[in-house]
Amino acid sequence: MAVKLYGMPMSTCTTRVMICLYELQAEFEFVRVNPFVGEHKQPSFLSKNPFGLIPVLEDGDLTLFESRAIIAYLLEKYKDQSYDLTREGNPKEAALARVWMEVEAHHYDPAIKPLLFETLVASHFGKTPNQSIIDAKRGEVNQVLDVYEARLSTTKYLAGDFYSLADLYHLPCTRHLMNSPHADLILSRPHVKAWWEDVSSRPAFQKVAINMNFDAV
Amino acid sequence: MAVKLYGMPMSTCTTRVMICLYELQAEFEFVRVNPFVGEHKQPSFLSKNPFGLIPVLEDGDLTLFESRAIIAYLLEKYKDQSYDLTREGNPKEAALARVWMEVEAHHYDPAIKPLLFETLVASHFGKTPNQSIIDAKRGEVNQVLDVYEARLSTTKYLAGDFYSLADLYHLPCTRHLMNSPHADLILSRPHVKAWWEDVSSRPAFQKVAINMNFDAV
Ligand SMILES: N[C@@H](CCC(=O)N[C@@H](CS)C(=O)NCC(=O)O)C(=O)O
Ligand SMILES: N[C@@H](CCC(=O)N[C@@H](CS)C(=O)NCC(=O)O)C(=O)O
Repeated sequence: MAVKLYGMPMSTCTTRVMICLYELQAEFEFVRVNPFVGEHKQPSFLSKNPFGLIPVLEDGDLTLFESRAIIAYLLEKYKDQSYDLTREGNPKEAALARVWMEVEAHHYDPAIKPLLFETLVASHFGKTPNQSIIDAKRGEVNQVLDVYEARLSTTKYLAGDFYSLADLYHLPCTRHLMNSPHADLILSRPHVKAWWEDVSSRPAFQKVAINMNFDAV
Repeated sequence: MAVKLYGMPMSTCTTRVMICLYELQAEFEFVRVNPFVGEHKQPSFLSKNPFGLIPVLEDGDLTLFESRAIIAYLLEKYKDQSYDLTREGNPKEAALARVWMEVEAHHYDPAIKPLLFETLVASHFGKTPNQSIIDAKRGEVNQVLDVYEARLSTTKYLAGDFYSLADLYHLPCTRHLMNSPHADLILSRPHVKAWWEDVSSRPAFQKVAINMNFDAV
């Protein structure tokens, strides 16, 4: 029985999981849950994720939420068909992959998501983008990307000279950033730009990226 | 050669790692790095963590930062002497442990750390606590703990009827919360309160908790 993923095709947390499913060549059933009309706050969805957020994954009677926890489960479930995204065979490489996965979660994501919200999402809720949030978050993204630029001038990918989950985690937010007025944050940094061109060319990402737009909301 | 941990005894991110080291009964050398006087922004420390934050772990020529990545590395390194904190033998239990580890990182920590900063840290930097941040973050912690109260009325620990890394991750911030004017957030919820009394009684935590005060700053 295929796993069931609940979410939306433009949601960064949903697509983080989808890219991974495609990397693993795992079959899955996709169930749309539309936060723009509040479907994620309905009792039936809250019984799957009490925080009322997408994505959720169901595998038989197991229900999981939190995109990065879902991914860890999928890597374990499909470990035989997986490109080695976490370098489990090499403790040092695995540790560095985890460091940069945490950097994505604690530095990149918290800086970039509010910037994307103001720029791409606010208007869908009838809100005017808040310029002071945009300025503050641009500043934070700049600081984080300065560290990335230095890092990527010494290694080809974030954790080392190998593509890993650390890179994959960055794809959804960076995809939206590149389609926002803030693409200069990536394009102005030669090593970050080259890294983006490389990681965004992977077929598993391209299958997902093509549907990451807000038109269908 | 023992691993080397850089940090401060009252820092929540440092103590997250220390509790784990004690659970694993792993030897380690502790090196104080005092953020209150800016030691974490000196070039020698920035060369270990380019984000200039504690903790950092060194194991021979391997340098790691981000507390949760460090912990994953330590669990792997000391896996033979480890109480099974991640339930690796049981994919469903391991997945649920990861879900609640992510909940700590993405819901509990972002709500509670600013509350602790305003209440316990701001004055050390000569700042007046910001009441509107306190009110907003208390609201967020309340929402998160309502979910925990419901969860802990069905399972003894966050991930299930077993103590796991998901519980451990919560210990440092909750220790400070209990010593702040906001302990009512825990004490007013019977299941959360009982859980706290249980998890905070573990010897590995108690060794660390005793030094988690700001007097020595
Ligand atoms: N840390 C969670 C975050 C989940 C999350 O924020 N999901 C967003 C979509 S990317 C959502 O459901 N937003 C609707 C809302 O905030 O009401 C994860 O990684 O799964
Ligand atoms: N996500 C990081 C956070 C590190 C962090 O914020 N460390 C704090 C101490 S708990 C720090 O270094 N603060 C000093 C500062 O912000 O300048 C981790 O888990 O290690």
